[in-house]
Amino acid sequence: MSEKIYVGVDVGGTAIKVGICNVDGDLLHTYEGPTETSKGTDTILHNIAQYARNIVAESSFEWEQVEGVGVGIAGFLDIPNGIVKFSGNLKIENVNLKGYLEKELQVKVLVNNDANVAALGEAWAGAGKGIDNCVCYTLGTGVGGGIIIGGKIVEGFAGMAGELGHIAIVPDLEAIQCGCGKMGCLESVSSATGIIRMAKDAVERGDRTTLTQVENIMAKDVIDAAKAGDEVAARIVSRAAYYLGKSMALMAVVLNPECFIIGGGVSKAGDFLFDQIREVFAKYTQKEAQEGVKIVAATLGNNAGVVGAAGLILRS
Amino acid sequence: MSEKIYVGVDVGGTAIKVGICNVDGDLLHTYEGPTETSKGTDTILHNIAQYARNIVAESSFEWEQVEGVGVGIAGFLDIPNGIVKFSGNLKIENVNLKGYLEKELQVKVLVNNDANVAALGEAWAGAGKGIDNCVCYTLGTGVGGGIIIGGKIVEGFAGMAGELGHIAIVPDLEAIQCGCGKMGCLESVSSATGIIRMAKDAVERGDRTTLTQVENIMAKDVIDAAKAGDEVAARIVSRAAYYLGKSMALMAVVLNPECFIIGGGVSKAGDFLFDQIREVFAKYTQKEAQEGVKIVAATLGNNAGVVGAAGLILRS
Repeated sequence: MSEKIYVGVDVGGTAIKVGICNVDGDLLHTYEGPTETSKGTDTILHNIAQYARNIVAESSFEWEQVEGVGVGIAGFLDIPNGIVKFSGNLKIENVNLKGYLEKELQVKVLVNNDANVAALGEAWAGAGKGIDNCVCYTLGTGVGGGIIIGGKIVEGFAGMAGELGHIAIVPDLEAIQCGCGKMGCLESVSSATGIIRMAKDAVERGDRTTLTQVENIMAKDVIDAAKAGDEVAARIVSRAAYYLGKSMALMAVVLNPECFIIGGGVSKAGDFLFDQIREVFAKYTQKEAQEGVKIVAATLGNNAGVVGAAGLILRS
Repeated sequence: MSEKIYVGVDVGGTAIKVGICNVDGDLLHTYEGPTETSKGTDTILHNIAQYARNIVAESSFEWEQVEGVGVGIAGFLDIPNGIVKFSGNLKIENVNLKGYLEKELQVKVLVNNDANVAALGEAWAGAGKGIDNCVCYTLGTGVGGGIIIGGKIVEGFAGMAGELGHIAIVPDLEAIQCGCGKMGCLESVSSATGIIRMAKDAVERGDRTTLTQVENIMAKDVIDAAKAGDEVAARIVSRAAYYLGKSMALMAVVLNPECFIIGGGVSKAGDFLFDQIREVFAKYTQKEAQEGVKIVAATLGNNAGVVGAAGLILRS
């Protein structure tokens, strides 16, 4: 019998990425095409199906080897039924993505949200390979998350599990309101947006920092300044690390994962950031819940989405 | 073929409770005998095996119908191997409980900690019947917990998952040190011990409360006084409820369970307590993560342990 393959699709607002994985999560082939969001729902759906066919056609595999197609997409989803209830960046509403693709492609299709899928990718074939229980953070514009227990995504009753950016972790006295409407969310301090906000506040306050010379402050500027010894920038990065570490201490007594995996743009700060997170985690976590627990960087980068989407077929 | 039965054993410091359940978690027969902790490890082990045999012998079932025996026990466990590494109240250390019982009883044996097992009981056949994902709190001397995802106990890397009493939830300014050594644990305010401590503090401070007339304040006294309109007592119960509700708001964005189940002595305060918890949960939880989510009282009482232990055989 020929080798089974798993197709993963990562649907973004600009591009649709597709990948072929083997049973071990090795990414064997990739493909990318435009989403063509502006052309509307029918075109987007057609493109997803077409690119899935294309990647297999241009690979050395036959369509008959496809065990299933997994799709990761941003938005509010009805995961069991594979329905996209609403996706802001794709401008689609109430679309039965699973139903459409299963009819078009005649294979099993599973749909899940992009943050969960990226977490599954890392857990299956990235930094968490071989580990059954892990919690993944993505530090980007916001703080995304995904929880893998027993090798599978924890979705939650309404698909809201793993919304780690909205853990209320900042004490009331220093909390600000998050985009979600609640106070003190992790995302308000530990995302790129949070870091930029704190830096701009410092500059406006007149703090003595090299950041005053930066025109349009990005999170990387703050991290670079902190690494170069700027005390104000260092304090900001420490604060981002502090609340990440504290949120992990919470996770440790709730889920006691074997591994925390951190990806996303801010995670490129590397051990400068990670060592601070590890220190806070060690300080605030009960001994038994931190023994042997690792805090590591994601390894799949932008491929986490397609790999995890392919993994949906094996890990659901 | 005759009906399969599942035997659950709840090993306490004083008594060993045993139950027979059917495949639906209905408790068909119960049995109880002394643990005889003072006679040492061999006697305790012998008693567990003997009582399991006894309950089947005195029931209308045959031993051949026993699909397996589950055991719930307090202590540090190596759950996969069924080893009790240390149990303070039984005074046993490094005992291969699973190995012993499988040899003695010639059926599949699974061992798990008492809080997880009670949670599984409620999730399987109690307040969470029919619900796949729930988070259980036991409000007793401490605050215990158990997390059920996909119908199964979440154990964690070192068996430390579900230690909800040690969620750091009280802000530093009003936090006290917990028995575990960390600051601000939920258990320090929302357990019977925490409620009693806050009441004694109030009396010592000279607060105007009817509790000054109670000789040896118990949690029930505080709850009764609060219900009767004592403002100081009401403030204490509200504080216990507040941090429970806040911890559930955290759980909601991490796991998004369908149901929170609350048991243990303090939960007998009923809706007086529950309504306050629900109000805090509603206030601090993102809309999507609270829609349709229930906060309910445990229904199995002291039987949760034996039912959940029996459930280990079906839900592992």
